[in-house]
Amino acid sequence: MTAAADQPGRGWSVGLDIGGTKISAVLVDADAMPRSALRVPTRRGVEGVVDSAAEATERLCAAAGLTPADLDVVGAGVPGMVDSTTGAVSHAVNLGIDGVPVALGDLLGNRMGRRPVWVENDLNVAALGAAQVLRLTGDLAFLALGTGVAAGLILDGRLRRGHLGIAGEVGHIPYVADGARCACGQHGCLELYASGSALDAAWPSRWGRPAPAELFEAAEAGDAAAVRVRDEYADAVAAGVRTLVLTCDVAHVVLGGGVAEVGAPLQAAVVAALRRQAVGSAFLTSLRIADRLLLAPRGSQLAPLGAALSARMAHTDPSTVKVAS
Amino acid sequence: MTAAADQPGRGWSVGLDIGGTKISAVLVDADAMPRSALRVPTRRGVEGVVDSAAEATERLCAAAGLTPADLDVVGAGVPGMVDSTTGAVSHAVNLGIDGVPVALGDLLGNRMGRRPVWVENDLNVAALGAAQVLRLTGDLAFLALGTGVAAGLILDGRLRRGHLGIAGEVGHIPYVADGARCACGQHGCLELYASGSALDAAWPSRWGRPAPAELFEAAEAGDAAAVRVRDEYADAVAAGVRTLVLTCDVAHVVLGGGVAEVGAPLQAAVVAALRRQAVGSAFLTSLRIADRLLLAPRGSQLAPLGAALSARMAHTDPSTVKVAS
Repeated sequence: MTAAADQPGRGWSVGLDIGGTKISAVLVDADAMPRSALRVPTRRGVEGVVDSAAEATERLCAAAGLTPADLDVVGAGVPGMVDSTTGAVSHAVNLGIDGVPVALGDLLGNRMGRRPVWVENDLNVAALGAAQVLRLTGDLAFLALGTGVAAGLILDGRLRRGHLGIAGEVGHIPYVADGARCACGQHGCLELYASGSALDAAWPSRWGRPAPAELFEAAEAGDAAAVRVRDEYADAVAAGVRTLVLTCDVAHVVLGGGVAEVGAPLQAAVVAALRRQAVGSAFLTSLRIADRLLLAPRGSQLAPLGAALSARMAHTDPSTVKVAS
Repeated sequence: MTAAADQPGRGWSVGLDIGGTKISAVLVDADAMPRSALRVPTRRGVEGVVDSAAEATERLCAAAGLTPADLDVVGAGVPGMVDSTTGAVSHAVNLGIDGVPVALGDLLGNRMGRRPVWVENDLNVAALGAAQVLRLTGDLAFLALGTGVAAGLILDGRLRRGHLGIAGEVGHIPYVADGARCACGQHGCLELYASGSALDAAWPSRWGRPAPAELFEAAEAGDAAAVRVRDEYADAVAAGVRTLVLTCDVAHVVLGGGVAEVGAPLQAAVVAALRRQAVGSAFLTSLRIADRLLLAPRGSQLAPLGAALSARMAHTDPSTVKVAS
């Protein structure tokens, strides 16, 4: 261990969102504010992930005149099952990590100036980032509409990880009886209707822009087929939102993931779908589900920011990651 | 306030489960163990509820040589929306309490030797009671299969009440697309297929015993129609269990409510349904949902016991009701 590693930090931390194709990294200052950000491609497999995460961290530090050894902590969000107390990762199929759990936290720490590394599920860190950026007081679901559909949950100010770390897996609740087979082996899962992948399939990109953007623009221009695809998609997303409210009664549901880049038109479509579902139901109307809906701000780096926040909180009190209210 | 009310208690408390037809009451000792129990009919309306709750408490105390003023605390579980910090109750339609919130905690306290009264949703107290009786370490859903279908949730050792106090309302998640109209105004709600009322309608009692008991016995005797009704019912219950696991990832789901009086045959039918749902899905199989299923022990007074426990915990630290692990 170097002398630098023993020095008390000046409050710097780095947050990483390690995705299947890229790693998004932010440098966070002592006031928990993001100061700079960059992206690097993800190399697959344990060694590749560690190498690319270290590269992102080193470049981010170097640009600020720091080294990884100057950091208080590093936080990493990973798309897989994470034992956050040990930093062990399993079932991170998109990273090429599967089979026996991998001690990713230790491996990353050894490559990053022996700083403490806190590993967390990627949706959980996105939820923490959303709480900070949207100034929510710690009760929300971050519903990611991307390749799949799943939520990170903060309930009563604490991350809800769950018994097996699968809390928020609403994408694998059946939505259409006897629907198509899902990659998970069930039929008709919500993910098949509410994911970004579902939109890509239902409305393939024609002009080289993201499929959701093209779809929502065509629908707004009055294309009847686009209106139908958009509204059926919004119905599915609204069903996921309703399920999160009826089970967890979260104060807020933040729509994130690639589809959320559509912005306000997505929110408007889902609000309309929620209102359609509540017609004739005083009960559902009384829950004011549409009022709970929020959008992840575009380009807001929620996941890497949340990864840094979770690491800072865990460093202070490893027993619990809480959201300041 | 009398002198008795100022005396430090000897650890006695009373728990009440105030239902639409009866109040179940238990006297709990300083070690949180139930010592005696009784039932009284519920009189409807605010005054009726207060009178019958006071009667139950007084009779329970008198039989033990106590008066309500000797109690440390009283806890009451109520089928409605409860603001547990104020003891205000609304939407307790089955008690004849609706419209503006009623300060039930204060009203009960005034009638019971001015002892502190803690009011909580009835499913939440049942969940607390289940955690104690089944010795679970604070992560469970208590899924009541009664007139309706809903769950009380303890997540990471704390009651999850939710933003509007409706966490665990899985009964109003649609289960059958374009199904029958639910009393809540939606269509095809799970409650229409998984409740005790649904069983009563699908297999009306022929011999004067509870419909679920007659149905499960007929099915076990090989009656093909009974087998079909039982298995479709179990499918619906299993869907509710699966939804609770995929959203909250609770370690345990405890089946309670009137239908749970059927006992082991109910559990076996729901386990079989969970296994049918997991066929072909390595993902669902890996969640081991069937292994999470438990039954509320018959005659175990979970709700009134949990009401007393919640009041004891709230009395110690009103900010949070936690479950000892």
